[in-house]
Amino acid sequence: MTRVLIDDPADPRLDDVRDLNRSDAADRRLVIAEGPLVVGRLLESRFPVRSIVGFGPKLDALDAPADIPRYEVTRETLAAVAGFDMHRGLLAVADRAPELSVEEILATARTIVVLEGVGDHENIGSMFRNAAGMGVDAILFGNGCGDPLYRRVVRVSMGHVLRLPYAHLDGTYTTWQRSLAQLADAGFHLVSLTPDPEATHLADALAGKEKVALLVGAEGPGLTEHAMRATDVRARIPMAPGTDSLNLATAAAIAFYERERSLR
Amino acid sequence: MTRVLIDDPADPRLDDVRDLNRSDAADRRLVIAEGPLVVGRLLESRFPVRSIVGFGPKLDALDAPADIPRYEVTRETLAAVAGFDMHRGLLAVADRAPELSVEEILATARTIVVLEGVGDHENIGSMFRNAAGMGVDAILFGNGCGDPLYRRVVRVSMGHVLRLPYAHLDGTYTTWQRSLAQLADAGFHLVSLTPDPEATHLADALAGKEKVALLVGAEGPGLTEHAMRATDVRARIPMAPGTDSLNLATAAAIAFYERERSLR
Repeated sequence: MTRVLIDDPADPRLDDVRDLNRSDAADRRLVIAEGPLVVGRLLESRFPVRSIVGFGPKLDALDAPADIPRYEVTRETLAAVAGFDMHRGLLAVADRAPELSVEEILATARTIVVLEGVGDHENIGSMFRNAAGMGVDAILFGNGCGDPLYRRVVRVSMGHVLRLPYAHLDGTYTTWQRSLAQLADAGFHLVSLTPDPEATHLADALAGKEKVALLVGAEGPGLTEHAMRATDVRARIPMAPGTDSLNLATAAAIAFYERERSLR
Repeated sequence: MTRVLIDDPADPRLDDVRDLNRSDAADRRLVIAEGPLVVGRLLESRFPVRSIVGFGPKLDALDAPADIPRYEVTRETLAAVAGFDMHRGLLAVADRAPELSVEEILATARTIVVLEGVGDHENIGSMFRNAAGMGVDAILFGNGCGDPLYRRVVRVSMGHVLRLPYAHLDGTYTTWQRSLAQLADAGFHLVSLTPDPEATHLADALAGKEKVALLVGAEGPGLTEHAMRATDVRARIPMAPGTDSLNLATAAAIAFYERERSLR
């Protein structure tokens, strides 16, 4: 087992975790897991881990394959490298790996979420955490969404983005309608989530469906009319008049709950 | 209408909004609303507004009673006073007002939430936002909870903490059991929310109940056994094995949804 004590913050072996807040350069090339729970999930994932950086006791407690380099650092050294105080004291870095194809996902999934224009990393992370917890099989990304492997998404998802299957619908030459037609052809009932009070109650929209694809748009603008027109039904969560629509991840979590409930 | 231009950050008329991040002294005495939406809700609330501070165009756009002093400031002056850049450019400050009594709330409510040990201000704020949006009539605070009028709660709740009734159960000489007995006497069906996989499905726990009090504990420790023993039923939201429990406000929002659904 390779374990090296590093006390020079300029050591190039720490470059993968350098200036994490000041630049997202590493985020774009790599996958970064923070804290023992998420590091453990990265180690169990399909992403090939390049290195592990942490305080001595955190490395002692970690169960990781012997061929992965471990760099032991002090709190001060890690703060100097990362650019902020990482009190959890454990980081792991992996290379990005190809995602599944849409076809592979559709072959086995019964419940999927399709995102359109969801750029907020906190919402994407919460969506993965809740989807994993509540029986959703996969998440598909449509146009204008944020990067699912961004460091903040990995953290907020509690590492579930490393486990739950996801794929990008091809937005460059395939139209939104054609993408959704692919889902319909695979037997999915397409449900738009909308705050529109004229829409169908969520419970009625999901009742008795074998396969469901739930479309969710950005907080604020919501789904485009373009996307909603390509779905079978527009579903609402009942809201009191004069109040604010739910946070996006919360609204989706309610739909995940109703989906599980409809299968009881 | 009193509208005064202030360009000296040391002006004592701005003391209510001084050093908002560095100290919560003002938070304890006062209610602080940030941004046009929440300021509007504070103006419509039972809390007596003392002053409004903002950029010129924000004050121009505001519909407020003429007897409330308005202090016009530049972005630089406001940043110097508040201690950070307030890009929304509008603040209103009110005195705290007595809360409703538990008896007043129980007299008319059909759905209430009871919090135990919920100290996280973001969770409390989200709970108010979701409760207001989804037909919950009031929130009761048990032991060990955070301050519902803390600035961050007001912001995260989008001002709904200023509108939705709430009260504190008296934890000093009344026991938890006696407080819950008061709810049971008022006809409420007491439901504990728990991640325990042995608990009753939420849908079954809420089915066919006229009045419901939903008990929610802190994220992590959850409700005390003490509190759960005093309830009629322990309810769970179904979760996939090996995943993480839901965020507290999300779990509560799902229960609010199921409650509405059970009344359809």
